[in-house]
Amino acid sequence: MSLLQDTIDAVRPLDEKVMNEAQQTLDYLMKPQGSLGKLEDIARQVAGITGKVKNTFRKKAVLIMSSDNGVTEEGIAGSPRDFTMLVTDIMLRGKSGACTLAKHAGGETFVVDLGMEKDPPSPGLINRKIRRMTSNFLHEPAMTREEAIHAIEIGIEETCKLIDKGYDLIGTGEMGIGNTTTSSAMLHVFTGEPLDVVVGRGAGLDDKGLQRKKEVIRQAIALHKPNPADPIDVLSKVGGFDIAGMAGTYLACAARRMPVMIDGFISGVAALLAIKLCPEARNYMFASHGSAEPGAQIIARELNLSPFLTMDMRLGEGSGCALAFHVMDAAMYMMNHQGTFEDLGAPPAISNLHNS
Amino acid sequence: MSLLQDTIDAVRPLDEKVMNEAQQTLDYLMKPQGSLGKLEDIARQVAGITGKVKNTFRKKAVLIMSSDNGVTEEGIAGSPRDFTMLVTDIMLRGKSGACTLAKHAGGETFVVDLGMEKDPPSPGLINRKIRRMTSNFLHEPAMTREEAIHAIEIGIEETCKLIDKGYDLIGTGEMGIGNTTTSSAMLHVFTGEPLDVVVGRGAGLDDKGLQRKKEVIRQAIALHKPNPADPIDVLSKVGGFDIAGMAGTYLACAARRMPVMIDGFISGVAALLAIKLCPEARNYMFASHGSAEPGAQIIARELNLSPFLTMDMRLGEGSGCALAFHVMDAAMYMMNHQGTFEDLGAPPAISNLHNS
Repeated sequence: MSLLQDTIDAVRPLDEKVMNEAQQTLDYLMKPQGSLGKLEDIARQVAGITGKVKNTFRKKAVLIMSSDNGVTEEGIAGSPRDFTMLVTDIMLRGKSGACTLAKHAGGETFVVDLGMEKDPPSPGLINRKIRRMTSNFLHEPAMTREEAIHAIEIGIEETCKLIDKGYDLIGTGEMGIGNTTTSSAMLHVFTGEPLDVVVGRGAGLDDKGLQRKKEVIRQAIALHKPNPADPIDVLSKVGGFDIAGMAGTYLACAARRMPVMIDGFISGVAALLAIKLCPEARNYMFASHGSAEPGAQIIARELNLSPFLTMDMRLGEGSGCALAFHVMDAAMYMMNHQGTFEDLGAPPAISNLHNS
Repeated sequence: MSLLQDTIDAVRPLDEKVMNEAQQTLDYLMKPQGSLGKLEDIARQVAGITGKVKNTFRKKAVLIMSSDNGVTEEGIAGSPRDFTMLVTDIMLRGKSGACTLAKHAGGETFVVDLGMEKDPPSPGLINRKIRRMTSNFLHEPAMTREEAIHAIEIGIEETCKLIDKGYDLIGTGEMGIGNTTTSSAMLHVFTGEPLDVVVGRGAGLDDKGLQRKKEVIRQAIALHKPNPADPIDVLSKVGGFDIAGMAGTYLACAARRMPVMIDGFISGVAALLAIKLCPEARNYMFASHGSAEPGAQIIARELNLSPFLTMDMRLGEGSGCALAFHVMDAAMYMMNHQGTFEDLGAPPAISNLHNS
C-alpha cells in the first residue's frame, strides 16, 4: 500500500460520544445555550477530533508549500515568476505577513519547497523539490500522475513530522505565482461552475489578462479532459505541487486526529481535493477567513464550512490561518475557563437567558 | 454648557496627515498593497485617531452597562428580569462569557449599574444607578429627557475614568433583559425600517412573544411619537439606560481620540444614537462581529462599518469586542513588526506581487 492510501485508510469519523460530552459541558457554561455560536462549534469539533472534552493548543504552525507553475509562461499572472522565490525568502527571514501574524498568535511558520524554479538564498527551507516548476498545462499535463501522488505524500510526511514534534494545530499556506490559475481550473473541473465565476484577478490582473487566464484554462481542459471523478487526474493535469502538498497536510491531520485550518482560495481548493480523496477528512477542517477571490464562496459551499473572519484579506501564505489561531485558542479558553452554573450554585434554568 | 455638549464639541476629525503617513508605511510593508484588507484599514484608522503612525494597545477594557427595562412587564422577553442582576453578578465574579474572552485577549471587564432593579451580591460594581428600572414605555416614556442626558453623561464619565487610568482600547457591552426590544424600537424610529425587519427573537422568544414584542413597540410609538430628528427624544421615550451609557462611551472615546469597539445589535443601536448626536464619532468606531439579530445588517449599513468576525454569536455582554481585541492587536503588531521592502533591499516593485 502507498503512504497516500494508508493515510486515507487511517482517517476515522469524529468521536460522537466525546462530542456529546463536550456539548453537555458547553450547555453547562454560564450563557444561553449556543449563544457563543462558532466558538462552541469549534470546541465541540476539536473534542471529537482529539477525543478529549477539553483541549489546549500548545504548539501552532502554518505549513507553507512553495512551488512554481509552468502555466505562468502564458502570461496569466500579474507578477513575474521570480516572486515565488523572493516571497519565500521573505518568509524564511520571518518577515512576511503570515509569519508576522503567526508570531503574534504564538505560532510558527515552516516552508516546504516542492518545485520552485529558483532557490531562495536564506536558510531554513525544507527542501522537497520534485522538479523545478510544473509543466505548462496549456500544452502538456502539469505533472505526471506519479508526481501528483508524490507531492501529496510529501505534504503528508512534512505534516507528520510537525505532529511528531508536538504541533497540535496546523494551518495551511502557499506561495506560487500562477496558483490562482491552477486552483481555478481545478475548482471548475470539480464543480462544473463556469469559468466566469471561478476565475478571478489574483493579485490585480487586468481585463485582458483575466480573459487570457480563462482562455488558457478552457483550452487546457479541452486538451487534457481531466476526469472530475478522479481527483488525482485533475490535480496532475491542471493543478500544482503546492495544492498537492496542502492536500497532504489535510489528510495527514485527519489521519492523526489533529485540527487543520484552511486559509483562502487556493488552500480551499486543496481542501476540496482532500475531501474528494477522503470525504471524512472534512470533519477535521476549520475555515479561517473568507477570501476576496470570487471562487471562495463556491468552496465554502462545497466544503459546507463557514469562515470565522471577514477581513477582505488576499495575501495568501496562510495569513488567514495565522489570524484565526486566536479564534481557535479563544474557543479552547472559553471551554476551559468560563464559569459554569455549578460555580454559581444556580439552576440550569438560567441557561435560557439574556439579551431578550 | 453640559458635559454632553462639551463632549460632542470636543470631537474632531481624524488626522488625515497621519493617516496618509500610515498608508505610506503600509504600502512599504512586504506584501501586495492592500492585501491585508481590514487589518490595514484598522492600522490606518487608529493612526488617524491617535495621531501616531504606530500604536500599541497597552490596556484593553470592555465597559459593560447593566440596567433594567420597565417594558419587560409586557412579556416581551424570554427571560425573567432577575437575570439582569444574576448575569451581572456572574460578570462581577469574572465568570461570564465576555469576561472569559476578554481575559484571553489580555483585557479586563468593568460593569456599571445604571438602573438595575435588584442589586447583585458580588463586589466590584460601579454604582451609578439613576433609578431602579426605566418606566414601561407601553404606558409612559421610558425615562425623562433629563434622565436620558444624565445616563449618557454617566457613560462619558465612566469611560473617561478608564482613559485616565491608561486604557487605550475600549469595547462596549451591555446586560439588560428587554434590551433587544428597546434597541429594536429605536432602530425602527431612526431608520424607518419596518418592525418585521428590525425586531428579532432576542434569546429565543416564541412566535407569540415575537408578535407581542412588535405590537408593544408599535403601540408605544403611536402613543409617544418619538421624533427621529431628536435622538434624545427617541432614547428617552423608547430606549434604555444601558443604550444611553454605551452612547456615552462612544462619544467619550471620540472626544478623547481613542478607538472604541461596537459589540452586537444593542451596542450597534447605541453607536447609531452616538452618531446621530455627533456624526464625526463614527470615525472612532470599529465593528467587532456580525450579530445574529436580524437588525444587525441594517445597523452595519447605517454605520457603514463592516464587522471583522462572523461567529454567529448572540451572547451580548461585549463578548464580540473581547474576541475582536485579538484582531485589533494583530493589526497593530503587523504595522509594528512586518518586514519592509527596505529590510529586503528590494525595489518597491515587488509590492505588486503574489497569489496571481
